[in-house]
Amino acid sequence: MSNKPFVGGWEKNMDKNEIKNLIEKLSELDTDNMYLNDFFHTWKESDDELSATFAVADILRGMRENNISSKVFDSGLGISLFRDNSTRTRFSYASACNLLGLEVQDLDEGKSQIAHGETVRETANMISFMADVIGIRDDMYIGKGHTYMKEVAEAVEEGNKDGVLEQRPTLVNLQCDIDHPTQSMADMLHVIHELGGVENLKGKKIAMTWAYSPSYGKPLSVPQGIIGLFTRMGMDVVLAHPEGYNVMPEMEEIAAENAKKSGGSFTRVDSMEEAFVDADIVYPKSWAPFSVMEERTQLVEDGKFDELKDLEKKCLDQNAQFKDWECTEELMAKTKDGKALYMHCLPADITGVSCEEGEVAASVFDRYRVPLYKEASFKPYIIAAMIFLSKFEDPATKLQELLDSAEKRIK
Amino acid sequence: MSNKPFVGGWEKNMDKNEIKNLIEKLSELDTDNMYLNDFFHTWKESDDELSATFAVADILRGMRENNISSKVFDSGLGISLFRDNSTRTRFSYASACNLLGLEVQDLDEGKSQIAHGETVRETANMISFMADVIGIRDDMYIGKGHTYMKEVAEAVEEGNKDGVLEQRPTLVNLQCDIDHPTQSMADMLHVIHELGGVENLKGKKIAMTWAYSPSYGKPLSVPQGIIGLFTRMGMDVVLAHPEGYNVMPEMEEIAAENAKKSGGSFTRVDSMEEAFVDADIVYPKSWAPFSVMEERTQLVEDGKFDELKDLEKKCLDQNAQFKDWECTEELMAKTKDGKALYMHCLPADITGVSCEEGEVAASVFDRYRVPLYKEASFKPYIIAAMIFLSKFEDPATKLQELLDSAEKRIK
Amino acid sequence: MSNKPFVGGWEKNMDKNEIKNLIEKLSELDTDNMYLNDFFHTWKESDDELSATFAVADILRGMRENNISSKVFDSGLGISLFRDNSTRTRFSYASACNLLGLEVQDLDEGKSQIAHGETVRETANMISFMADVIGIRDDMYIGKGHTYMKEVAEAVEEGNKDGVLEQRPTLVNLQCDIDHPTQSMADMLHVIHELGGVENLKGKKIAMTWAYSPSYGKPLSVPQGIIGLFTRMGMDVVLAHPEGYNVMPEMEEIAAENAKKSGGSFTRVDSMEEAFVDADIVYPKSWAPFSVMEERTQLVEDGKFDELKDLEKKCLDQNAQFKDWECTEELMAKTKDGKALYMHCLPADITGVSCEEGEVAASVFDRYRVPLYKEASFKPYIIAAMIFLSKFEDPATKLQELLDSAEKRIK
Repeated sequence: MSNKPFVGGWEKNMDKNEIKNLIEKLSELDTDNMYLNDFFHTWKESDDELSATFAVADILRGMRENNISSKVFDSGLGISLFRDNSTRTRFSYASACNLLGLEVQDLDEGKSQIAHGETVRETANMISFMADVIGIRDDMYIGKGHTYMKEVAEAVEEGNKDGVLEQRPTLVNLQCDIDHPTQSMADMLHVIHELGGVENLKGKKIAMTWAYSPSYGKPLSVPQGIIGLFTRMGMDVVLAHPEGYNVMPEMEEIAAENAKKSGGSFTRVDSMEEAFVDADIVYPKSWAPFSVMEERTQLVEDGKFDELKDLEKKCLDQNAQFKDWECTEELMAKTKDGKALYMHCLPADITGVSCEEGEVAASVFDRYRVPLYKEASFKPYIIAAMIFLSKFEDPATKLQELLDSAEKRIK
Repeated sequence: MSNKPFVGGWEKNMDKNEIKNLIEKLSELDTDNMYLNDFFHTWKESDDELSATFAVADILRGMRENNISSKVFDSGLGISLFRDNSTRTRFSYASACNLLGLEVQDLDEGKSQIAHGETVRETANMISFMADVIGIRDDMYIGKGHTYMKEVAEAVEEGNKDGVLEQRPTLVNLQCDIDHPTQSMADMLHVIHELGGVENLKGKKIAMTWAYSPSYGKPLSVPQGIIGLFTRMGMDVVLAHPEGYNVMPEMEEIAAENAKKSGGSFTRVDSMEEAFVDADIVYPKSWAPFSVMEERTQLVEDGKFDELKDLEKKCLDQNAQFKDWECTEELMAKTKDGKALYMHCLPADITGVSCEEGEVAASVFDRYRVPLYKEASFKPYIIAAMIFLSKFEDPATKLQELLDSAEKRIK
Repeated sequence: MSNKPFVGGWEKNMDKNEIKNLIEKLSELDTDNMYLNDFFHTWKESDDELSATFAVADILRGMRENNISSKVFDSGLGISLFRDNSTRTRFSYASACNLLGLEVQDLDEGKSQIAHGETVRETANMISFMADVIGIRDDMYIGKGHTYMKEVAEAVEEGNKDGVLEQRPTLVNLQCDIDHPTQSMADMLHVIHELGGVENLKGKKIAMTWAYSPSYGKPLSVPQGIIGLFTRMGMDVVLAHPEGYNVMPEMEEIAAENAKKSGGSFTRVDSMEEAFVDADIVYPKSWAPFSVMEERTQLVEDGKFDELKDLEKKCLDQNAQFKDWECTEELMAKTKDGKALYMHCLPADITGVSCEEGEVAASVFDRYRVPLYKEASFKPYIIAAMIFLSKFEDPATKLQELLDSAEKRIK
C-alpha cells in the first residue's frame, strides 16, 4: 500500500472541471484492498483508502450538485439491520443506497424469525441472495457489535465462495461498539471543508470531551472513532473526561500510535476547560463509562433486569456529579480566538431546550446550527463512497465514465 | 397570476394526440408560483394552479395507460411522515413517488429518535439530504397539523438556502387539520370525469352532509376541503349537519367568498333531507364537531387521559342522537332524478356491513361501488401532479419531452 | 395445453449461448394461460407451465450471473402482504421484485386500516392502483389462506375490468394453508440441479417425512406442496408421519393421481425408517396435524383463547411422544448409499443447536449446510419467474431481447 498525502481542499459547488481534477487525484491512490472488502474501523484502512473515501464522497456530491446521475446499480438490494433506534444513520444509508441505485430492504428483527434462534450465518445468507451491500448498526453492547458484524461478513463471503450467493455483499459498519466510521469520516470531511483543505489540519487542536447528559448508556464509539481518526492527520487530539469515564484502553493505544506516525499528538486530561484552551475544534459529547457498558452487557446476557435498573440509577447518579461538564459560552471563550468549531454527532442534549441541564448551552448550539447540519450532510456521501469503493475495482475510471456520460439525475 | 377558465373535459383512455392537446392547454396556464413551492390548501392556489394540477394528473394517467414512462427522477427520495394510520393515502403517495422515480422512505416516529425531544427543524433537515419531496399526514389535532407542516417546509427551505441541503424538498399536504387537498382534488377530478368536463359543473348542486357513525374523532379536513374547493367551480354547495357539528368558522367564510367569486353559492342547512333535495352530488360523511376536536387537542396536550375517555363517551352519546343522518334509499330518491352521484373518501361506515348503524345504507353503497373506487383511483395521479408541478419550471415542455421519447413503462 | 417433457438439466454459470439455448426451449412451451393469471397451486399448472417457470428462473439467474439486467419494469409496485412472520420469503419476494424493476410496498395490517373492518374487495383495489403484482403469505388457518387470496385476485381482476385499475395485478401465492408453491418449486429446481437434469428424476425416491419439533402449529403447506409437486416427475414419493399427523385428504388424492399420470408412485408409511430406506432424497420436517389445525382455526374464529392454550399444550404433549422421529446419522445411513440429499425449507430445529431435541441431528444438518443454502437461493428466481410469466405474453422473445441488449446490472 502506498501512503500518499491525504487528498483534499476541494470546495462545495465544484464545476465539472474540478470534479475531473479530483478524479485524477483519486486515480493515484491505491484502493485495491477496498474492492470486495468491508469497512469496519478507520484504523484498519490505509491513508490512501481514507483519502479515497473522502475523494469519492466529494466527487459524488459534486456530481449530484451538477445534476449528474451516479446510479451505477440497475438493480440490487442494500440490506439494513439496525439493532438500535436511528433516524440520521437510517436516512443516510437509505440516501446513499438510492443515490447508487440500490433499494433498501430492512431486516426488522421484530418482523423476522431472527429472534427465534436462527444462527447468524444462516440468516446472513438467506437475506443476501440479491444483496450488494449490508449496513449494520449494533452499538449497544461491548464486545458484541463488531463481533456480530464480522460473523455476518464472513458468512456472506463464504456463501459467495460456496456458490450460494451470486455476488459478494460488502458490509458497511453503521456503528459498532468500537468505532462509528461513517460518523467520524463525515465529521472529518466537514472539518476538511471548514478548514479549507486537509493540508490545513496539521497542528490543529481538537478537544474530544465528555459532557453531561441526563441519559445513560450512550455508546463509546463516537469518542473512540474521533480519537482513532483525527490522530491520523497530524492534529493535536485531546481527550477529556471525568474519572471513571475511560474509553476502551486499546483505543487509547491506537490513538497514541496514530499520533506518533502522523506527527501529531494524543493527550488525555481531566478537565473540559484544559481541553478547550486554544482548541481549534471542540467535540463535547456524553458517553457511558466503558466499565459500566461492560457490566451492562453482562447483566443483559444473564437476564438480570433488576440489577440492570440499579446500574442505570447508579450511572445516572454518577453522571449527575459532573453537571459542570457543559459546553458553555465561558468555555467556548477559552478556545482559539474564542471561535473554535463546535461539533456534535446530533442529537445534542441542549440545556433548557431538550433537557434541563445538558451537554451544551443553547446559545452555543444555536450559533453553530448551520455548520452542525452541514457536518451531518456529509454522511450519506461518505456511506455512498464506502459502497462505491467496495464495488468497483477501478473507481476513478468508473466515475470518469459517469461524468462523461452525464446522465441527468432529474431529467 | 392569470385566471383562465378551468381546463377539463378529457376522457379516460386518451390517445397520444389527446394527451398532446391537454399538454398544450397546460402550457397556457401560469404555474410559476408552484415551482419549488409547497401544496398546503387548495384555497391558497390560483384557478390556473388547480387547473394545471388536474391537467397534469390526467396527462400522467394518459401516459401510463399508453405504457409511456413518466420517470423523471433517476434517483431521489420521497419522504413520508404519517402521524395517523393510513392505507389509501400511504399507497397513493407511494404510487405517485414510484411513478416519477422517487423511492419512498418512511419516517416512522416509533423507530426514530423524533420522539426523544428533537426539534422539528433539526429532524426535517436530517431526513432531507437527498429528499426531493416530503409528504405529511397530520390531521388529528386542531391547530397542530398545518402548523407542523409549515415548520417542516420552512426548515428545509432554510436548509437549502444555508447550503445544508443540495436541493429544496417540496411538501405535499397529505391531510392536515384544516384541508385534505389530495382527497378533495381527487374527488373533484372524479366529478369532472363523471360530468363530462369542468364546464358542466356550473350550477350543479352538491350536498356535503354530516352522517352518523359509531366512531368518534373523524377529522374535519374532508368536509372543509370539499366546501373550500367545490365552491371554486360555480357550484351550489350545501353544507348540512346537526347542531353542534360545525366546521371551522374560517372555512365557512372561505367557502362563502369562493362561491361569490365563482358565481356559485354556499349555504348551510340543518337537515340531510333539505340538502339532498335535487342534489346532483351527495357526500354524506361523519366528522367530529370542531369544539370537540379542540377540547380533545387540549386534553391530549395536558395529558388528561381520563377526561379524554369521558369526552369520547360524551361525543359518542351525542352522535347517537343523530342516527337518522344516514344516506338511505329514501333520501337518495329525493336527489336530482333520484340519481345523484354518491361520493365518499372511504372507508365508509356501511349499515349492516361494517357496523350496525352507519353513514350509508348497504344497497346505496353497493350501487356506487365502482364509481367510488374510481374516485379513489385519481389520488395517486393528483399527488404525482402536485410533485411534478413543484419540481419543473416548465411542466408542459417536460411532459411533451416524455411523450415524444415514449420510453416504455413495461418494456 | 401441450404437455412436453420437462425442460431442465442446465448448469449454474451458464454462458450467453447456454442461456440462448434455454430461451429456445422455453419458446416451445405453452405459457398462454399464465399471462395475466395468478399462481396459486402447482397442481393447477400444466407440465409446460411448471417447466417454463423453472426455465425462466434459470434464465434470469444466468443473466444475473452474466451481469445482464432483467429490469423489465421502469416503474410499478409489488405489493406484499404477510399475515405471518417471514424473513426468507419476504426477502425472496423483495429480491424478485427488485430484479424486475418493481418496488415493494408492504401492506402492514398493523399500520393500515384493514383491521378496522374494511372488506377485502375494497382494500385490494385501494392498494392496487399502480400494482403490477401482489404477493401474499397467509398460511396459519385451514380454509382461510387460499380463500383470502382468491378473493383478492378476483377483486383486482374485476377492478381492472371495471376501469378502476389501469393494469391487472397478478397474484403470487407466497404460502397459503394448502400449498407453498414458491418453496416447492425452489426445492424442485434445487433437486434438478443437484441430480443434473430433470430427466434424472424419474424413479428416484423422495421421503417426505414428519419430524419432531418442540414447537406447534407449523403449517401443512410444505409437505402438501412437496407431495403435490414431486409426484409430477415420475418419482417415488413416500409420505411418512405418526398416526394422527395426516395432511389434508384431498392432497393425498392429488398426489396419488399425479403419480399415476407421471409413472411414479405415492405411498404413505408409518415410520421414518421405512421411508428413508434407499431414499435418494429425504425431507424430514415438522408439521401440525390437519385436525389440530382445523380445531385451532375454529377456536381462533370463536375467540376461545383459553381453549387455544389447552389445544397447544395437548398438541405439544402429543408431539413429545414422537421424539424419535429425528433425522439422525443412523437413519441417514439407511438411505441410498448413505448419501441421500437432505432437504429442508429452513429454519430447521436442530438438536442441541436451536433446541434440545429437534428435527435433525447437528452433524447431519451441518454436512448439508451448503446444499441447504443453495436450495433456498432458488426462491427469488422462482418468484421472479412467476411474475415474469404472468406479465409477458411471449416470455421467450422478451428474454431474448434482454439478452441481446445486454444492459449491465452493475454498470
